[in-house]
Amino acid sequence: MTAYEIIAKKRDGKELTREEIRFFIEEFLKGNIQDYQVTALLMAIYLRGMSDEEIFALTESYIHSGEIIDLSDIPGRKVDKHSTGGVGDKVSIVLAPLAASLGVPVPMISGRGLGHTGGTLDKLESIPGFQVFGSVDRFKKQLAEIGVAMLGQTDRIVPADKRIYALRDVTATVESIPLITASIMSKKIAEGIDALVLDVKYGNGAFMQKVEKAEQLAQYLIKVGEAFGKRTVAYLTSMEQPLGQKVGNWLEIAECIDCFHGKCPDDLLQVTLTLTAEMVVLGGKAKDFEEAYRMCQTALRDGSAFQKLLEMVRYQGGDVSVIEHPEKYPVARHRKTVIANTSGVIRAYDTRAVGMVGVVIGAGRQRAEDAVDPQAGIVLFKKLGDRVEKGEPLAEIHTNQESSLEEAEAKLRAAITISQAPSQLPALILKRMAK
Amino acid sequence: MTAYEIIAKKRDGKELTREEIRFFIEEFLKGNIQDYQVTALLMAIYLRGMSDEEIFALTESYIHSGEIIDLSDIPGRKVDKHSTGGVGDKVSIVLAPLAASLGVPVPMISGRGLGHTGGTLDKLESIPGFQVFGSVDRFKKQLAEIGVAMLGQTDRIVPADKRIYALRDVTATVESIPLITASIMSKKIAEGIDALVLDVKYGNGAFMQKVEKAEQLAQYLIKVGEAFGKRTVAYLTSMEQPLGQKVGNWLEIAECIDCFHGKCPDDLLQVTLTLTAEMVVLGGKAKDFEEAYRMCQTALRDGSAFQKLLEMVRYQGGDVSVIEHPEKYPVARHRKTVIANTSGVIRAYDTRAVGMVGVVIGAGRQRAEDAVDPQAGIVLFKKLGDRVEKGEPLAEIHTNQESSLEEAEAKLRAAITISQAPSQLPALILKRMAK
Repeated sequence: MTAYEIIAKKRDGKELTREEIRFFIEEFLKGNIQDYQVTALLMAIYLRGMSDEEIFALTESYIHSGEIIDLSDIPGRKVDKHSTGGVGDKVSIVLAPLAASLGVPVPMISGRGLGHTGGTLDKLESIPGFQVFGSVDRFKKQLAEIGVAMLGQTDRIVPADKRIYALRDVTATVESIPLITASIMSKKIAEGIDALVLDVKYGNGAFMQKVEKAEQLAQYLIKVGEAFGKRTVAYLTSMEQPLGQKVGNWLEIAECIDCFHGKCPDDLLQVTLTLTAEMVVLGGKAKDFEEAYRMCQTALRDGSAFQKLLEMVRYQGGDVSVIEHPEKYPVARHRKTVIANTSGVIRAYDTRAVGMVGVVIGAGRQRAEDAVDPQAGIVLFKKLGDRVEKGEPLAEIHTNQESSLEEAEAKLRAAITISQAPSQLPALILKRMAK
Repeated sequence: MTAYEIIAKKRDGKELTREEIRFFIEEFLKGNIQDYQVTALLMAIYLRGMSDEEIFALTESYIHSGEIIDLSDIPGRKVDKHSTGGVGDKVSIVLAPLAASLGVPVPMISGRGLGHTGGTLDKLESIPGFQVFGSVDRFKKQLAEIGVAMLGQTDRIVPADKRIYALRDVTATVESIPLITASIMSKKIAEGIDALVLDVKYGNGAFMQKVEKAEQLAQYLIKVGEAFGKRTVAYLTSMEQPLGQKVGNWLEIAECIDCFHGKCPDDLLQVTLTLTAEMVVLGGKAKDFEEAYRMCQTALRDGSAFQKLLEMVRYQGGDVSVIEHPEKYPVARHRKTVIANTSGVIRAYDTRAVGMVGVVIGAGRQRAEDAVDPQAGIVLFKKLGDRVEKGEPLAEIHTNQESSLEEAEAKLRAAITISQAPSQLPALILKRMAK
């Protein structure tokens, strides 16, 4: 068995065995297979695809490349949520404390933003003092004590994915369903969960823009989760416009704080309640979805979810005063209102472009090693289908880089289509999928 | 224009522009594009193919990656021959002095053997003292003075191919017609020729085993040669059995010396005369192929070709005494006769396997950095279609590694099929192709 033979086999469209996949990943990590051989195989996988069995084997090899967290000594069914990523997708920040306040342990390991998408870690780090890195022991202790922990991935969990993702990122092999599936599911399975809720985004701000592709990805994610004994439920939700009204790290935290106080944009609230209710069902804390949904509404309204958020922020070293008094958080030095230069109805958002405006103003990052500005962001005053009059504000840009304002305004304006004709709104929550 | 965009474009089956191909190769050589990006593109090219225009552009980028030899100050039409490689293919060693003896300047740059195929450089180096490396100036001086030079490729000519070939070799991307075409033709065009004769092998000892694939490769080679203004003629010739009777470095030189003395195996003689005659026509030294063929027969018979060989060996520092008295050349320490254990007709050679026996006994190399033993080799007593009686010698193995004899004998025996039924012989020279 050699790297060459494995590459040639996949190149010719044949199915790799579990042993071949394991050999390739293990030898790569040992330094016996080179980066340039990995990328040739990745391109062959991209173009030739993988069978279910191959995807299971790849996920398994990824998982066994590092540490697997054992949460079996923590009582309860541990449930996590994963989103395929989007613009303004701040759901986790409300959902994790909310589910935990209802007794579902949430061991959440999140990532950073890249390109047009934001990352939960970056948002949490906009809270002064908030720590997202810690040992596995600390993670388990926190989960046992307060029922929720939101951390960043360490190098010890699924190192294979980290190294291979870096290669995919520069060789145009990211958008491959088998590779995405193994990457997402290995990390979730290695974090020791019992069940998983997936938020698979579709639309022009999603990685899988087409519904069919998003649905296909969801099917694979469910198949792999179930194959590893994790109950897995997926929702297809819209990314045809940013979720909620705010995009940018602290701005999104602030919008989440509003949600705990009964002032939540409709779309954000609906997606959050639905995904959290599903977690409550999977966590065995409600008899059915309807009951779970009502429990979530109550916990959000009665302050118990907010208390859990404060508890978590405090536990992870964050300054709770800004959570209690978000108005005290410093505002970006430069703000610019984008005014509508025509009247009509908001017909379309180029959601990816809105996310890329975030990169221009410092809220997002172009490359993994770039820093982000916690204060930078965009407030959108109009949602799809809203009426707007000429001269009315469409959005407000916040940045500490004055020189970026002009480009940001032009790009943001170009990303918003105003038209006279009314148009069909995309389904916010398109469908639920499970085995 | 970025490496990523170029890889993604080819991945999606789109046609790359000349500028994109040039950018990719140039930036790779400058160190701005990494090996792992090159191999991803190579796999995408392997699986998606390339248009004629893309192959021209790739060849052009290869050529311009290094020095281009200018032979315009040497009188006459410079003609070279290139073979796609095989087992026992020693044609160049007779052909080059023969064509030169008829007034056609032959600036031949050859390669080494790898795997089952032999290499002209290795064969020439079995002549004590023979030098295959030298400066471009020396090469030109030799060509001007004696009309023939047989040298190895320097790093200064088409360095892009050398680096990319090394990556193809370990990522299962060698057998791609666009990549093979650019690799072969860039080196031939950069050596300053006016015309080229191609010996494209087909059959079980060839890289392109199927006639259709060999024919397709020949078409591309001709297209590219002509696009760069070089008259290019290709012959499809059989590699269903080793060419001639001897395989191994010095053994093949010895067989060539026999050819100059009227004792040439039929197949070797036919292929050599045909290809050389084509060179004589392309070199403008005969009015048609028939005349050129007769001229070649005469020059071989009257000793003028042999004198040119001696002149070349002397010029390149080789010991002419072994050419004049090959019986004085030391024989390998261990020789083993392989006896037929059944009677019948030689129905098939597994030609690639015969070549691989060469690797076992030290005549060939597994990896580019391995050394070869000039004395090791195989003498085959029977050609396809020959009658053989049980107990009669089939072959003789020559090696300095006694321990390899057993494996070599078993593999060689397995590579020769003797059967009762007569079978159709493959066409030695299947067809001539030109624009």
